[in-house]
Amino acid sequence: MAKTQAQASPQAITRKSENFSEWYIDVVRKAELADYSPVRGCMIIRPYGYALWENVQRALDDMIKATGHQNMYFPLLIPRSFLTKEAEHVEGFAPEVAWVTHAGGEELEEWLAVRPTSETIICSTYANYIQSWRDLPVLVNQWANVMRWEMRTRFFLRTTEFLWQEGHTFHATSEEAVEETDKMLGVYATLAEEWLSIPVIKGRKTNAEKFAGADYTLSIEAMMGDGKALQSGTSHNLGQNFTRAYDILFQDKDLTRKNPWQTSWGLSTRIIGGIIMAHGDESGLILPPRVAPYQVVVVPIFRKDEERAVVASAIEKALAELPPEVRVKVDWREETPGYKFNDWELKGVPVRMEVGPKDVQKEQVVLVRRDTRAKDFVPMAELAERVPDLLDTVQRDLYERALAFRLDNTRRLDDYAALVAAFDTGPEDTTPFVEAHWCGDPACEAKVKEDTKATIRNIPFDAPDEEGVCIVDGKPGIGKRVVFAKAY
Amino acid sequence: MAKTQAQASPQAITRKSENFSEWYIDVVRKAELADYSPVRGCMIIRPYGYALWENVQRALDDMIKATGHQNMYFPLLIPRSFLTKEAEHVEGFAPEVAWVTHAGGEELEEWLAVRPTSETIICSTYANYIQSWRDLPVLVNQWANVMRWEMRTRFFLRTTEFLWQEGHTFHATSEEAVEETDKMLGVYATLAEEWLSIPVIKGRKTNAEKFAGADYTLSIEAMMGDGKALQSGTSHNLGQNFTRAYDILFQDKDLTRKNPWQTSWGLSTRIIGGIIMAHGDESGLILPPRVAPYQVVVVPIFRKDEERAVVASAIEKALAELPPEVRVKVDWREETPGYKFNDWELKGVPVRMEVGPKDVQKEQVVLVRRDTRAKDFVPMAELAERVPDLLDTVQRDLYERALAFRLDNTRRLDDYAALVAAFDTGPEDTTPFVEAHWCGDPACEAKVKEDTKATIRNIPFDAPDEEGVCIVDGKPGIGKRVVFAKAY
Repeated sequence: MAKTQAQASPQAITRKSENFSEWYIDVVRKAELADYSPVRGCMIIRPYGYALWENVQRALDDMIKATGHQNMYFPLLIPRSFLTKEAEHVEGFAPEVAWVTHAGGEELEEWLAVRPTSETIICSTYANYIQSWRDLPVLVNQWANVMRWEMRTRFFLRTTEFLWQEGHTFHATSEEAVEETDKMLGVYATLAEEWLSIPVIKGRKTNAEKFAGADYTLSIEAMMGDGKALQSGTSHNLGQNFTRAYDILFQDKDLTRKNPWQTSWGLSTRIIGGIIMAHGDESGLILPPRVAPYQVVVVPIFRKDEERAVVASAIEKALAELPPEVRVKVDWREETPGYKFNDWELKGVPVRMEVGPKDVQKEQVVLVRRDTRAKDFVPMAELAERVPDLLDTVQRDLYERALAFRLDNTRRLDDYAALVAAFDTGPEDTTPFVEAHWCGDPACEAKVKEDTKATIRNIPFDAPDEEGVCIVDGKPGIGKRVVFAKAY
Repeated sequence: MAKTQAQASPQAITRKSENFSEWYIDVVRKAELADYSPVRGCMIIRPYGYALWENVQRALDDMIKATGHQNMYFPLLIPRSFLTKEAEHVEGFAPEVAWVTHAGGEELEEWLAVRPTSETIICSTYANYIQSWRDLPVLVNQWANVMRWEMRTRFFLRTTEFLWQEGHTFHATSEEAVEETDKMLGVYATLAEEWLSIPVIKGRKTNAEKFAGADYTLSIEAMMGDGKALQSGTSHNLGQNFTRAYDILFQDKDLTRKNPWQTSWGLSTRIIGGIIMAHGDESGLILPPRVAPYQVVVVPIFRKDEERAVVASAIEKALAELPPEVRVKVDWREETPGYKFNDWELKGVPVRMEVGPKDVQKEQVVLVRRDTRAKDFVPMAELAERVPDLLDTVQRDLYERALAFRLDNTRRLDDYAALVAAFDTGPEDTTPFVEAHWCGDPACEAKVKEDTKATIRNIPFDAPDEEGVCIVDGKPGIGKRVVFAKAY
């Protein structure tokens, strides 16, 4: 039995094609991205996983700042009375809140929520800061931990505590808030596509799936290796819902007093799950070069001590050729090359460089791509150019491969029975994205969910205008196809 | 009344020489570093304050990584049973813990502590990871929020929630743990002295002041503008106290099983308070250039529109001369130059560049140092060199000034009445550091605290060996002078 054999080795993982969920857990744990913690639903993010997150953070933080936002920090704890001010919001979040009730040896007069998100405390603060149109726009962001008491948890995708950034903005006009909501979704799409090689569908969530308290929510949705969708970032136009509830008022240029228009947007450690599930294969992780903790791993190959010395000096020479921004790890552990190959494949390092005595003679190294395993003999003198080129190629090819996979597994359907059949997949099948017409009625959406477990992921921005009738009840559609999929 | 007048202006602050505590609060709030929050004892770190913290973080994170540590992330919540395993630890922290007792709509079976520090959960985790000497050393760090329910809080210095990094290491020998404890204290001293221009005294805390659960604690101590000490970073040698309590065992090279030796070390947002109080003056903040959010602020000076255009193009030219790494803010707000000068002085920007029509004619700008207010006319063509030089000079001079202040306010005393008198200061006096002999008896230390409120800050590493008798009870001293001071 392949599986039993496989599990005997510490590097072995469940076959992706047999059991995607188990494969995912094995990859997370054996690639040392994260581990279970003694606290229910919380995880430990291990150094390799955290380094990946830091690279994602750095890229996103730079874009958040480049679009004019400033970081700040709000308290972890939120008074219970705050959460209840915006009616939809409290309904959405109250069941998931963790409460601090005792502190400093005493019972607290008012329970404090561990923040599930920070709109409420931010509104209560900005009610003091915003007086005039001159105080707008407010464009702030925070990197923080948040907590939502989930019943079923899964590494990165759904954990009781998670790390994220939450942007919060206030504007003098509705138009500006609309523009901001779009702009930040665009930033998330850029992060996903250009940094993480994950193609995404930008679109608007249905009302059933929007943020509790928002006018509307935009999302980026990506297809994972099993065909399921991962909502990978959301941008909310909160309208004046919270600013009214919190009595935030500014004097506009026309001297009237108005509630500002507000947005919020967040992207979390969930995206790490997306990287794993969008690109990984039977051997483990495949990391996009731009965020990989190590972009190149060097495996020395030698038998005798004198060979080791020769190889070591060749490696030194090779490293000196590489541009300093390339992140390299040289693996001198006392293990066989085969063990190291497996290990770094499991960990998804985009490019492996092998250097053995024969290569030294020929003044070359061997470069092996993690994604295709294509092998190339590259002269030392060309490394400065070839390695960055290869990393760029892998980055682009991962994107193309993920996009082709999504397109291959996307179906345009107009018949309800076909839709139900499409989602009636076996454990080893890829579940599809289905583009179908929908009339806009939440009841039709709910029926699909009940019959298939699929939901409307979003109404894509760039779906072409197209007349059609609702795949459920045959009433006139909203004018473009929506995307149904099973989701994480 | 100067004070009343001063308070009439939004930029005015309490005089530092009159009331240092009020001055501190005014600077924090009016320079927009932080603000009160609706949650008792927690603060809001505003964008300007957070940008300063990010620069401190970046510098420290780079050094933590350069010394071989990796970042990771442990859960916020810690089961109650964990905290009680190490006896001294629970005694030290239990009274300050905030407890999550309800979550997801239910009462929890076991209360969960919002981490006051993470030794316990890290030990419980590494008990699984550490099996052999090959697994050592473990060198990890996390950037996180922690919570200690303090009764009296003060911006940055003591807040219920604060941000910090906590390093945690495990070693195969006691010697390695000793070395690590020293090394990380050295990193903190480098951060304080080279990045923040704060001279510090490195030394060992007395047993009365060590971390709850440590064999011993090292600290860096700095003198603030009122003469009080700020403990600015601590490094703990935990010995085998926690590894025994948590049953962490590794098989050593000699095949015996041992408990590893452990260290932990932390530096928090408290250091921001140190920057404010070490350098600030009657006009507000003075920020060390290496961590200042803006190193240079440009104030355009013009009356008519045509002057504005000329000045704008000169500023553009000046900016083009500056090296790209210089952090510059150009202030085009519709306010008077005088208002802007006050504002940026309050915010502590190290160098102000004034550009007016006369300067344009002479192809020069005016550079004004924040610390000394010295003014210099600098030819455009020399900016590329002169601005970085001036920033370096300010960085160094702030350090020298703070060091001179500490030395001026440090007294070597051998008589108990003199010690008591030295700490009997009026509200406008500078309280001193007193170097005195001490016998090592906690009772003598406690008596000084009772009589003067001063404590032994630390036993400085580089105090010379010197025989002497305890300033309290006349018994033989420990062989070098210790530092007594009032402390934050």
